[in-house]
Order: sequence, then structure tokens, then C-alpha cells
Amino acid sequence: MADQAVARLAGIDVGASARPLPSADFGLIGLAVMGQNLILNAADHGFTVCAFNRTTSKVDRFLANEAKGKPIVGAHSIEEFCAKLKRPRRIMLLVMAGKPVDDFIEHLLPHLEKGDIIIDGGNSHFPDSNRRTQYLKGKGISFVGSGVSGGEEGARYGPSLMPGGNEDAWPHIKDIFQSIAAKSDGEACCDWVGDEGAGHYVKMVHNGIEYGDMQLICEAYDIMKRGMGMPVSEIAEVFAKWNTGVLDSFLIEITRDILRFNDDDGTPLVEKILDQAGQKGTGKWTAINALDLGMPVTLIGEAVFARCLSALKEERGRASKLLGGPTPEFTGDKQAFIDDLEQALYASKIISYAQGFMLIQDAAKQYNWKLNKPSIALMWRGGCIIRSVFLKDITSAYRSNPDLENLLFDDFFNKAIHKAQSGWRNVVSKSALWGIPLPAFTTALSFYDGYRTKDLPANLLQAQRDYFGAHTFLMKPEAATEKYPAGQYIHVNWTGRGGDVSASTYQV
Amino acid sequence: MADQAVARLAGIDVGASARPLPSADFGLIGLAVMGQNLILNAADHGFTVCAFNRTTSKVDRFLANEAKGKPIVGAHSIEEFCAKLKRPRRIMLLVMAGKPVDDFIEHLLPHLEKGDIIIDGGNSHFPDSNRRTQYLKGKGISFVGSGVSGGEEGARYGPSLMPGGNEDAWPHIKDIFQSIAAKSDGEACCDWVGDEGAGHYVKMVHNGIEYGDMQLICEAYDIMKRGMGMPVSEIAEVFAKWNTGVLDSFLIEITRDILRFNDDDGTPLVEKILDQAGQKGTGKWTAINALDLGMPVTLIGEAVFARCLSALKEERGRASKLLGGPTPEFTGDKQAFIDDLEQALYASKIISYAQGFMLIQDAAKQYNWKLNKPSIALMWRGGCIIRSVFLKDITSAYRSNPDLENLLFDDFFNKAIHKAQSGWRNVVSKSALWGIPLPAFTTALSFYDGYRTKDLPANLLQAQRDYFGAHTFLMKPEAATEKYPAGQYIHVNWTGRGGDVSASTYQV
Repeated sequence: MADQAVARLAGIDVGASARPLPSADFGLIGLAVMGQNLILNAADHGFTVCAFNRTTSKVDRFLANEAKGKPIVGAHSIEEFCAKLKRPRRIMLLVMAGKPVDDFIEHLLPHLEKGDIIIDGGNSHFPDSNRRTQYLKGKGISFVGSGVSGGEEGARYGPSLMPGGNEDAWPHIKDIFQSIAAKSDGEACCDWVGDEGAGHYVKMVHNGIEYGDMQLICEAYDIMKRGMGMPVSEIAEVFAKWNTGVLDSFLIEITRDILRFNDDDGTPLVEKILDQAGQKGTGKWTAINALDLGMPVTLIGEAVFARCLSALKEERGRASKLLGGPTPEFTGDKQAFIDDLEQALYASKIISYAQGFMLIQDAAKQYNWKLNKPSIALMWRGGCIIRSVFLKDITSAYRSNPDLENLLFDDFFNKAIHKAQSGWRNVVSKSALWGIPLPAFTTALSFYDGYRTKDLPANLLQAQRDYFGAHTFLMKPEAATEKYPAGQYIHVNWTGRGGDVSASTYQV
Repeated sequence: MADQAVARLAGIDVGASARPLPSADFGLIGLAVMGQNLILNAADHGFTVCAFNRTTSKVDRFLANEAKGKPIVGAHSIEEFCAKLKRPRRIMLLVMAGKPVDDFIEHLLPHLEKGDIIIDGGNSHFPDSNRRTQYLKGKGISFVGSGVSGGEEGARYGPSLMPGGNEDAWPHIKDIFQSIAAKSDGEACCDWVGDEGAGHYVKMVHNGIEYGDMQLICEAYDIMKRGMGMPVSEIAEVFAKWNTGVLDSFLIEITRDILRFNDDDGTPLVEKILDQAGQKGTGKWTAINALDLGMPVTLIGEAVFARCLSALKEERGRASKLLGGPTPEFTGDKQAFIDDLEQALYASKIISYAQGFMLIQDAAKQYNWKLNKPSIALMWRGGCIIRSVFLKDITSAYRSNPDLENLLFDDFFNKAIHKAQSGWRNVVSKSALWGIPLPAFTTALSFYDGYRTKDLPANLLQAQRDYFGAHTFLMKPEAATEKYPAGQYIHVNWTGRGGDVSASTYQV
């Protein structure tokens, strides 16, 4: 046993005669739809893949069906699986995030050698990937936490891949990752993201942005349907047209398809689907992380809350009987309003991505990660759910200026948002009068107007905090005086009754 | 030693001759402004209080000044402090939340006896209070985590107190707590809240609501100042008038005072204060908890994000030069718009409190706490920062129907929000056109319009998720068919290309 262990650590294949010869370039554990499709994708690119699943009947079924005739082998135990992989082993887990990932890591460890690579391609939370990178580094195993986006179609024909973790792994997986990834203008939508959980972090923000994009589309559909009284078939054609302009993207495209998809009775199936969305997951993590870092990522926040509100389906039913509002009656130039709506959606989207990059930028600073912003935009350019022409422009913006402080300061987007403004304001303003909720459109506009405001009313807020809690305040540098100098924490006795003790902390 | 320990556990005073006789009804650790004022408050109500502070010079200074002539004694060590307290000891910590609380608990434990009570009156996070309740229960000590609100004035003349934790403590502290608490229509603004961290939880939501109330006031001030071009002195008079109507509250009152407070040069000091607010703390916790529980507490969320945005002061300065917007020019009936603004603030406030109570209600369910909703409103009615006439109406609403599903379903508030609607919509609509950000007003209106909508556009969102990720959806019960029955998770092959494998989980 000891001899074998030493030999294994040295990379010598012990007892090869009794075991299958390593033949697979890549191993994948977890045969749900994403896993199956990633295997088929890798096989199509000439890689031999070994498939494993805890319920091994799934392996047999997969080999006998979808995998038939392709360079795909199966394994019925972890040991067999590991034995079939070339060294260094490249093993991808596509299992449920959380404990299953840790469990599989522990199952794998006894069968691995130094330098082997474990890739977690699930929806793991980035702090878990931080932890796993460090834990496996201590055991000589390179851990990669990789965001995988694109859904089942993406996994099959080219996903967006966002790998981060132990950079030692990158030269060994670069080839296969960039081969199976989506291509955008000939470039792979996959690059090394950064240290530890950086890959899953960027995937998390991607998902948050996805929440935002989806919410914006839902709001546009809702205001056309309920605000303008348009039939679904007509709305479908609006999305079809938008998909040829600045909004050209996967989500607009599938929205067009969905709105055109009729049930057997010839009416749109979408209208029959329950309006109740799940609110747990990576969108929520993004919003929580934004709150933790103190970054105003308001659009994702509202998108997550919109899902929470949708979940209260029955309560809303009761509320709809008790709470009244205006009846929207659209008058005016219909096409002009639809054009305004397109601009409003575009402007809101610019805000959402600007906020997302503000968050990523701040996270890199706070977690001490080096991130490549042009690459991030490129990774999202193709393959993933938020892929769009728009991301090409973001890639260009960061390529021409990697130190760009804010997306809104880039010439292209600066012009775009100024052009979009009047339509955007018109839509938001009308929605308030019509009683159609557009939480994402409106928070985007509030952010824009707040962000471009040199002097916000938080001066009053600071005065209030000092008034009731002696929390102190600072002066505006240009308004500082001898009595109230700049840079000093000042407490004012606003009432003449309070004491002189300030309470900026409860320090004892 | 062992004998002394046994005697101590039995409540027998060992070596009393060498130690001071227990004389104090109440002990307080932490002599920052809140602690000092709570001690003075208790002393005014006839309780003898023992004061301790880690830096003991603070004890001497306090005894020689503010405490002089009052039934207040001091201690220079934890041992002396504990010896001076009557049994069961009632010890309140007003130290910085976090480790200092745990440290003081450990310092205290060797000097306590079974049945003694430790009260944490700091801004602790409720999960810490859950943990401390259980930990101290195991040692025979009753832990109370109590929200304390009202700032320095409140602490001195009657705070709002929200105690929760080990209910065994309540009979022993009820008298002193209800004596020093604020009174509203003769009732103490203090009652037992519930198990474990329920007191700190309710305080957390209180603080979140406080964030919201303050943000709403700031927005009202901003739109009068920048949207309507009103001088600060005139705005002060609007708040003065509002303070005599439905908005009558502590925060409106102090806003009036702040806006009237001039610097030596005769101009309002508030205009010179830096518009940069802190964004960490209990407001953030409330928003994060709302996201965790899946409750759409959007107004607090936006209020927290507004503080985050205010913190980006220098970036906003740069943005203000690059990002343009409309120049608001107010025309029309000024008083009518101010009246609309009052209604908008009132309606937004109703939404914020409705959301806060939705959150508390859901937390009680999820954490298995029994909470008394009328009491919560009553505790906030006086003493605390959000005290208002408004909370009297909320107390009445929950007293007349403790099972009220939503504040908006109560007759009084239902009428109020319907009356406020047209003004509210006008203000929100104008702000979008004027380019003045009102994130809290607008998110409140979006919530109202979303909450009263039976069919939200989340049906499209569910279709999108099924399209790209095979996440499945449910049918609206009224639209279910034989092919697509109600209550079943359905996956549709939207494109004709995808497989049949659904991906609702990544289960292996």
C-alpha cells in the first residue's frame, strides 16, 4: 500500500495491467442536462471524455443513447473514473452547489495525484470557491471554480466559461475550455478570470445582470400589454424588430420566440404560465454582496425583489381586489412610444451593466483580485444567457481604456445614454401615471439622476443623524470655516438641550 | 474556593464584610452618551444604578459631573460592579456590538449567580442574540437582547425599548424597563417582544424603516430645493406645516429645526454639510434579511443603496460633469404640488411600514417566534427615532385586527393610500421628467402597483427560464389543460431543438 502511494505520488501507474489504461482527456461528474451537453460538446471537439454519475444507470443510459458513436466512455465508480483519466487528471463537477461538491471532492481525493485538477462548474457561491482553492492547494490539487453559462443550448454548442482559482491549472485546461466555449468574432468566450473564487464571482454578477435583463424585458412586455393594450402577437413583432437593433441579444430573441409560441388552441402559451418566479440563487447573492460592499447595484436589487413580489401570487390576488389604481388609456403616437420604450430599455441596460462593473471593480479591490475587465465583457459576449451585441461595445470600451472608471464615461455609452434620455423619462413618467409597475426601468433612471448629481440631499441625512444620535458630520470642503473646518468630525448642539458627548461609536 | 462557589450558587453572600453591600437595582456597562443618559434616566425614576466603564476614568468623570447628587454609584472593576448589584443582578451592556459584547459576557460570568440577567442594549445583529440566549441559558443566566432607540435624547428622557430573549428575565426587568421607556398616551413604549433575538430583530427592522423615513424626507427636501427652486427657509416652513398633519413625527420635526438652523453667516448650516452618508449597519442588515427571506422590502433596499451612492461623492463630482439631464423649471400651482408631495411622502411611508410588517410577519413564521404586532407598533409609537402619529394609527390597525394580512388592507390605510394616489403619481412622474432622483418615492409606487397586480409579467420570465435552462414552469390554474395540467412542472421544447431532460436541479 505504502509503495503504491509513493508510486502514485510520483505519477507511476501502479498495477496498470489490472486497471483500464488512462484514455480520457477530460472527466465529468454529473449527468443532468448541463453535464450531458458539456460532454457532447467536448466530444465534438475531439476530446475523449469519461462520464460518471452517482446513479450509475444514468451513465449506461447516456452511453447507449446521446453518447453513442462519440469518443465518450463511462465509469461505474469513482475509482474506475479516475483510472480512466490521463494525467494530470482534469475533472469537472457539475453537481448541485453546496455539500455535494465537497462530498465529491472527498470521494475523489484518495484516487488523485499531485497536480490533478478539480473543476467545479456548478453554481457555487464564490466564498466556497475561495475556501476550496486554499484547501486543495494544501493537498497539491489545483482547484478551479468556473462559471458556466448558456443553459442547455450553451453547454451543448458553446457556453461562456469563467474559470478562476489556482492559476497552475490554467495551462492544462485552457485548450479544452477555449475549444468548447462559445466564439465571438473568432475569439473564445473564455479566459482566466482571477484568483480563488473570482470565476464564480464574475458568474454571480453575470447572473445578477441576467436577472436585471430579464426583468427589464418583462416590464417592457407588461407596459405594451397592459399600458398600451397591444396583443401578444404584436408585442412579439416589436421584440423581433428590437432584435435587429441596439438590443440585439439572446434574451430578446427568445422573448420573440416565446411570444410567438402558441398553445394548441392557437393562443400564446406564455399567457397561461403562472406568474410566480423563484427568488433564491445567484441574483440574490449579487444583491447581498452589493449591500455588503456598499455598491448601489439598484437594478439587480429591484429585479430580485420583483421576483419576490411575483412569488406572493395569492396575496396579490387578494390585494388586486382591495387596491385600486388608474386605468391606462394609451393615446398618442404608438410607434413613437415603442421607440421610446426601446431607448428606455437600452438606457436601463446600460445602467445595469455600469452598476455590475462598478461592483466587480470594487470587489477586485476589496478581495485583492486582479481582474481583466475587457476579458470579462468578452466572456459574456457569446455563449451565455446575456450574450448580445451590446457586450461587444462594452468589450471595446474596456479594451480602448482598461482603467475606465465607469461605463457611462465611455464615449459610446455616454452618447447612447444621452440620446436615450428623453424616451426613457417619458416611459418612466407615463408608467407612474398609468399604474403599471416598472421597478427596474425606474430605479435605473433614479440611479442615473443620482449618480450625475454632485450634491445629493444626504447632507440633510447627516444633519439628522447628528441631531438625534450625535453621530457627527463633515463639512463640504468649499463651505468649511474656522469654526467648522474641513475634514473634522463635527457635532452641533442643534437644540441647545443635548450634551457635548458625541456618539460616533459606542466605544467603552 | 469550592465552598464559596457553592454558596454563591445558592445565593448566599460570602465574605460580605469585606465587600460592599449590594445596593444598586441596575448596573450599566459602557459610558458613551447612550449609556450615561440611560443611567440618568433610570436614576430619575428612583432606581439606584451602578456604572462601569473599561476606561475607569470615565466613571469618575461621570460621577463627579452629570451623575452628581443622583442615586448613581460607580465601580472600578467588574468584581466590584457585580458585588454592588442586588440579586438577581440586572446588568445592561451598552458597548460596541460584536466581540466587545462577548468579551464582557465572559468577564462577567465568573462573578454572576444563577438567575442573574445580562441585557445587551447595543446594536447587535439578531443572530448573535439568538446564540447568546442559548449560550447563557446553558449557564443559568438569562440573556436579553434589547433594541434601544431614541438617540441621546431618547435615552435620557424615555427611549423605545424592544426586549427579547429569555422570557424568564422579563418579570425582573419589566418594572425598570417600562419606567424608563417613553410613554405614549399613558402606555409604556416597551413590551416583551419574543424569543431569542426577536428584540434585536424588531430593532433592526425599526432601523431599516428609519433609513427609509430619512431617505423620503431627503427626497422631499431635494425636489423642493432643486425641482421647485425653493429656498431652505421656505422648505423649513413646509416641514413645520407637515408636522401638524398626517406626517407629524419626530423626524419631520427635527428636519424643520435643522433647516431653520443657521450658521454664523446667517445661511442654513445644512447646506454646508457634506452629502456623504455611512452605509453600513442595521439598514443593510434589514435589506439583506429581506433578500434572504424573499420579501420585497424595496423601500429600505433603495434607502440603503441611496446611502451607498451618496458615499461615492468624488465619483459623482466627476460624473456630474459628464452626464447631462433636463433643467427642471417648475410651473403651475406651487401649493398644489407641495400638497401632492405631502401625499406622496405619506403614501410612500405607508408602503414602507407595510413592507416592514410583511418582513416581521414572515420572520416570525420562519424563525418560529411568537410576535405581538400591536405591541411592536406601540413600542415604535414613542421614544424612538421613527415615533409619529402615524404609528398610533398602525397600533390601532393591529389592535382592531391582530391577524391583519397587510397594512394596506386596513380600512384607515386603505382609504389613505387611495386618497394619496393622484398626488403621489404626479410627483413621481414629474421627478422623472425633471431629472431629480426620488428612488424611495418611486420604488414605493412601483411596489404598490406591483402588489395590486393579479397577473405580473413573471409568466414571461418563467418561460424564459424554461427556454434557456429547462427550468420548467407551472400553469395558471384557470388556464390549465389536459396537456398542461395545473400543479405540474412543465418543460416545453420551445425551439424544437432541445432535449427532453429538465434541469430544475443539478441532482446527480
